[in-house]
Amino acid sequence: MTTTADAVLRLENAAARLHDASVRGFASDNYSGVHPEVLAALAAANEGHQVSYGEDDYTARLQGLMEEHFGAGIECFPVFNGTGANVLSLQSLLPRWGAVVCASTAHINVDENGAPERIGGIKLLHVPTPDGKLTPELIDREAWGWGDEHRAQPLAVSITQTTELGTCYTPEEVRAIADHAHARGMKLHMDGARLANAAAHLNVPLRAFTRDAGVDILSFGGTKNGLLYGEVVVALNPEAAHGLIFLRKMNMQLASKMRFLSAQFIALLEGDLWLRSASHANAMAARLRAAVDTIEGVEPTQKTESNGVFAVLPAGIADRLRESFRFYDWDEAAREVRWMCSFDTSEDDVDAFVAAIRRELAGHHAGTEAG
Amino acid sequence: MTTTADAVLRLENAAARLHDASVRGFASDNYSGVHPEVLAALAAANEGHQVSYGEDDYTARLQGLMEEHFGAGIECFPVFNGTGANVLSLQSLLPRWGAVVCASTAHINVDENGAPERIGGIKLLHVPTPDGKLTPELIDREAWGWGDEHRAQPLAVSITQTTELGTCYTPEEVRAIADHAHARGMKLHMDGARLANAAAHLNVPLRAFTRDAGVDILSFGGTKNGLLYGEVVVALNPEAAHGLIFLRKMNMQLASKMRFLSAQFIALLEGDLWLRSASHANAMAARLRAAVDTIEGVEPTQKTESNGVFAVLPAGIADRLRESFRFYDWDEAAREVRWMCSFDTSEDDVDAFVAAIRRELAGHHAGTEAG
Amino acid sequence: MTTTADAVLRLENAAARLHDASVRGFASDNYSGVHPEVLAALAAANEGHQVSYGEDDYTARLQGLMEEHFGAGIECFPVFNGTGANVLSLQSLLPRWGAVVCASTAHINVDENGAPERIGGIKLLHVPTPDGKLTPELIDREAWGWGDEHRAQPLAVSITQTTELGTCYTPEEVRAIADHAHARGMKLHMDGARLANAAAHLNVPLRAFTRDAGVDILSFGGTKNGLLYGEVVVALNPEAAHGLIFLRKMNMQLASKMRFLSAQFIALLEGDLWLRSASHANAMAARLRAAVDTIEGVEPTQKTESNGVFAVLPAGIADRLRESFRFYDWDEAAREVRWMCSFDTSEDDVDAFVAAIRRELAGHHAGTEAG
Amino acid sequence: MTTTADAVLRLENAAARLHDASVRGFASDNYSGVHPEVLAALAAANEGHQVSYGEDDYTARLQGLMEEHFGAGIECFPVFNGTGANVLSLQSLLPRWGAVVCASTAHINVDENGAPERIGGIKLLHVPTPDGKLTPELIDREAWGWGDEHRAQPLAVSITQTTELGTCYTPEEVRAIADHAHARGMKLHMDGARLANAAAHLNVPLRAFTRDAGVDILSFGGTKNGLLYGEVVVALNPEAAHGLIFLRKMNMQLASKMRFLSAQFIALLEGDLWLRSASHANAMAARLRAAVDTIEGVEPTQKTESNGVFAVLPAGIADRLRESFRFYDWDEAAREVRWMCSFDTSEDDVDAFVAAIRRELAGHHAGTEAG
Repeated sequence: MTTTADAVLRLENAAARLHDASVRGFASDNYSGVHPEVLAALAAANEGHQVSYGEDDYTARLQGLMEEHFGAGIECFPVFNGTGANVLSLQSLLPRWGAVVCASTAHINVDENGAPERIGGIKLLHVPTPDGKLTPELIDREAWGWGDEHRAQPLAVSITQTTELGTCYTPEEVRAIADHAHARGMKLHMDGARLANAAAHLNVPLRAFTRDAGVDILSFGGTKNGLLYGEVVVALNPEAAHGLIFLRKMNMQLASKMRFLSAQFIALLEGDLWLRSASHANAMAARLRAAVDTIEGVEPTQKTESNGVFAVLPAGIADRLRESFRFYDWDEAAREVRWMCSFDTSEDDVDAFVAAIRRELAGHHAGTEAG
Repeated sequence: MTTTADAVLRLENAAARLHDASVRGFASDNYSGVHPEVLAALAAANEGHQVSYGEDDYTARLQGLMEEHFGAGIECFPVFNGTGANVLSLQSLLPRWGAVVCASTAHINVDENGAPERIGGIKLLHVPTPDGKLTPELIDREAWGWGDEHRAQPLAVSITQTTELGTCYTPEEVRAIADHAHARGMKLHMDGARLANAAAHLNVPLRAFTRDAGVDILSFGGTKNGLLYGEVVVALNPEAAHGLIFLRKMNMQLASKMRFLSAQFIALLEGDLWLRSASHANAMAARLRAAVDTIEGVEPTQKTESNGVFAVLPAGIADRLRESFRFYDWDEAAREVRWMCSFDTSEDDVDAFVAAIRRELAGHHAGTEAG
Repeated sequence: MTTTADAVLRLENAAARLHDASVRGFASDNYSGVHPEVLAALAAANEGHQVSYGEDDYTARLQGLMEEHFGAGIECFPVFNGTGANVLSLQSLLPRWGAVVCASTAHINVDENGAPERIGGIKLLHVPTPDGKLTPELIDREAWGWGDEHRAQPLAVSITQTTELGTCYTPEEVRAIADHAHARGMKLHMDGARLANAAAHLNVPLRAFTRDAGVDILSFGGTKNGLLYGEVVVALNPEAAHGLIFLRKMNMQLASKMRFLSAQFIALLEGDLWLRSASHANAMAARLRAAVDTIEGVEPTQKTESNGVFAVLPAGIADRLRESFRFYDWDEAAREVRWMCSFDTSEDDVDAFVAAIRRELAGHHAGTEAG
Repeated sequence: MTTTADAVLRLENAAARLHDASVRGFASDNYSGVHPEVLAALAAANEGHQVSYGEDDYTARLQGLMEEHFGAGIECFPVFNGTGANVLSLQSLLPRWGAVVCASTAHINVDENGAPERIGGIKLLHVPTPDGKLTPELIDREAWGWGDEHRAQPLAVSITQTTELGTCYTPEEVRAIADHAHARGMKLHMDGARLANAAAHLNVPLRAFTRDAGVDILSFGGTKNGLLYGEVVVALNPEAAHGLIFLRKMNMQLASKMRFLSAQFIALLEGDLWLRSASHANAMAARLRAAVDTIEGVEPTQKTESNGVFAVLPAGIADRLRESFRFYDWDEAAREVRWMCSFDTSEDDVDAFVAAIRRELAGHHAGTEAG
């Protein structure tokens, strides 16, 4: 058999790389590749045979590691992606007639092509928010009508941490939502696609704003934090979550060679890689935010509490900037854009981007004044 | 940033490997790890940014490679796993009221926890077969009732190549099924979880028994042939398959960092790795079959036309063998077992296993004669 | 407002009847109209206002009547039709990952366009039977694999009483199935589209072969026994059935003017109309069966234990008979036909049909002998 | 057999009526019973045999009648209820990945326990409106993102005529929406639970604001206009609607004795009963509205353009009124109530209710002034 040493040789083979690795931008944390430590962990988990579908040594180890982070009594279900993790989590919390209260901007509402509704069979009762964050008061706008057979029954709340708008719930805010939900017989799901960024921002352990704050089930994201692929559904309160072992398979989220999925999370969670990468991404966003706060014409729209910066730009600027740096419009009508940083964003990346923004806006002001 | 060179160092770090890589067996081709060339391809695809969700250079290259294998005009949709590929494929072929004729032993019928029905919304009309292979005559047992509103409309046929029983359709057999199906307004799906093994057995190009034989859509399997994860839905007849781009997302099969999914398939298909690995696995199964054919008391139940051997053993033998080599019962009541070979099965693995079988059966015969 | 007296006048208005009421046949018990007592009950329930969606006086009365038949502690949910009743019942028994063991000939498997799978999200594990009746042994062919995440979990059994083949389970047979199912953690559903015919055949109260025999939930059919429309889901063991109040609405089976649905069942169940009609239909089938048993060339294929007769006819006979009497092929390839009797089938209907059969077969034998 | 004459006798039997027919109110148009002409039509359609599942003479006649109203080339599918009609209609317009733009107050969004999402597999993109009516501008708030695989594809618009708030689209308003939708590749569904009330209000033929205004498919409601049960899905543009014959069965909306469903609609549509009843209900609402417009303290919140009046009452008044007349809160927090009139609402009913309102408000003002 070929050895890993042979494989290494190919790493050096330029012909195998189809893309220009020097191209970088602020489009999304999933434009980045894989952290080298994660890649190394994949290689280390290779060779020989391991039982498939999760009865392997790596998945067992991951369960132990998750217990170190969240405490005993939790249950882990590695899955392929975030949409899968969310749909599974919500299905496990809800009977067939259940509905979920979420923010209108929630990924489950706007970015999953209706998977929660179509595949999960779940009604979403979504509420507009100014900053992507629910509150007990906002939840109450849709949390009513229990027992009314005409109404999809609001039996869970889903919050995103950090939110799709880059904001972050404090542990106290999560606790208030959890208490409010539980008092009404509702369960609490957290979409943690950027969970590590929240911990980095809050400077508290992962469990402080999840299990200890009353979250029942968690979609623990890895892909946006340097993994090749993979999320973990973590049933923090297993009594609230039913049938995950079966739901995972029927929702097409059961990896056969699960050792590799788990090995990546081990690489993330065994040491401080999860926190190191997230802190770095947050720091880069903070650096970008600090810089643009000083640029006239750029109007940030949200607090920068994780790895994304949201801002309104003058007309025409975004498209000119995109000739050099890829990023997305957030609200095209409002000229609001989103700039995401990642574990691999460098200070140079940020500084070059800031310089470009300055250039474009200087040109813009000149043009405006002249005109 | 850490370089890939650093990563390599960790490969040598024994502590990172949690499992005993010397443990081997015949349980499943997904107990194996990843082919080193695939691992190398992952590393080579890393660093820098690539557009997510499939607009990357690797996915574009994969499309080109697939066209080299199957001809121009096909469309590729990389997905996470085989169940996902199957459900997507079938949904794309069928209206909401469609049904699929398949063998009773089909993976879609017995191993996917009802995903085709529950998630895909598809009725399966399954037919018992002696060897896992459908024929026009067997299809006709369920292909009837078009226009009858009470009957789920049989509008597609699904066959598995190679079958779950290790048998292989010839190109002519596939063509006969395709013609039969098409003449009745039905489309043809092929579950190719072990597609490469079929090409290796038949000694023909991949397109000979797929596109050229009338298959409309293909689940092209990679995981069982040495990938970390990943399958590709290949719309061989794109006019027959609708909405795959949307179906993939809503079925939670859209990988964000798709470059890595595609890079694995490039490693498989750019050279002959796909064929080399499959031929090897088949050869190991043939070696095992040839050996057990000479052992009294082992009764093979199917032709060995790919990488699996099915046989009936005397009572008690399977469990004793499993003390040293892991494998599964196929039909416990009939004492039928399944032995699978993989790209990493060695001749020594086979010979050691054969020796163990001989030992157990010798002991068995001795015991029987004594008793 | 117009009074019911005005309405009566229109009953006499020949112009309002579009069809020839003298045309009769043996096609199905749902070709018949409505029993006059049921029609009268609809009129009696009219005028004034009643709370919609089931909080009316008639639905309350129906609950009481059902308790008289099945004992205290049951719960009733009137619905529109049999497919609706079946899907609701099964959903209420099962988690999202559940499967149902049933006979291959079950209405839920062959006549509902996949509603149990597509709408209910239920995998059907169906078993061939000689006479439409399951047994513990037959159930065991599919009742296995609990805990195996790849297998849809067999958590319920569904039987039809009387079966689609006109046969009838004895109370002891139902009890044996219930005990077998319950011992394996499975629940028992009975599709009682022709429940009254079973009671008439068995000459026992309804509860003898339902609740007292261990059935957990029942689809109690009314339409085939002289109602305009309507079935009732009866949760005989409410602890086994979850969320029916919500499932009914989301499955589009909640009638707004439910008083009329319930009033029909009251007409059926308050006196002996249910039994009178079913006994009559059974007697007509018995009369038909007794007659054809004496006709050479007609080969009955099943016991006549309710209101249907199944028989094989010589080639060509069925189509000639159908020129005068409508009925359906059951198994066209086998030349097996089905003749159904109803509450409104008369002795004259049967005798005229028997005479026609005799004529056709006499002609057939003459032709055969001549030929 | 018992004759219809016998049935009539039972109509007079007081014991058969369980409810107090003198109790009346303003809760809902489905609290009313059945129009006597409809009841008579049921009786007239009875006796003898008719092919089930829609191949009967009444359903054929209904198709002809609908063509008289809507023009040639339309297709009718009678179903059980409004939720069923809506889900079927939307499914027929949409691929599996489709979404529907609707008003937030739409019945499909708030009153169907998520049936469109769970059963139909449809994402609802709902938009707040002041009066329950969509406009091209409001539609554009959600009609975007075609081709974006992350977004449920907005491929249909659904409007309710008259709306859930008692308002009515003019033919021109419907046409503007249809043109806007069609220009974007979207289809137009109309939920016509109260369609006849719109025709009565607009004083135009049914087709003027449906087919002639560009509606593709229609849920034609009967239950709220004096039927026992029943709605008809009318494919006004059959090329836009796929598979309704199969969708009806799989969605559990196929009535076996369909002659009775169709006979009711014939009674409604053959003469002017549909219009007579709706005009009367509208007139009663107008009478109520005119009266309360003169009562200080009652603040109507919507135009009265059909058979419902919406108003805000001072605190405490609604509950005291309900001691004599049943009706529902519409928005409890805002103290907004809904008063519905029906085909059987009399001028005396309205006047008595108005008198009661006056009494309560007089007492209220007295109390307020005294206090």
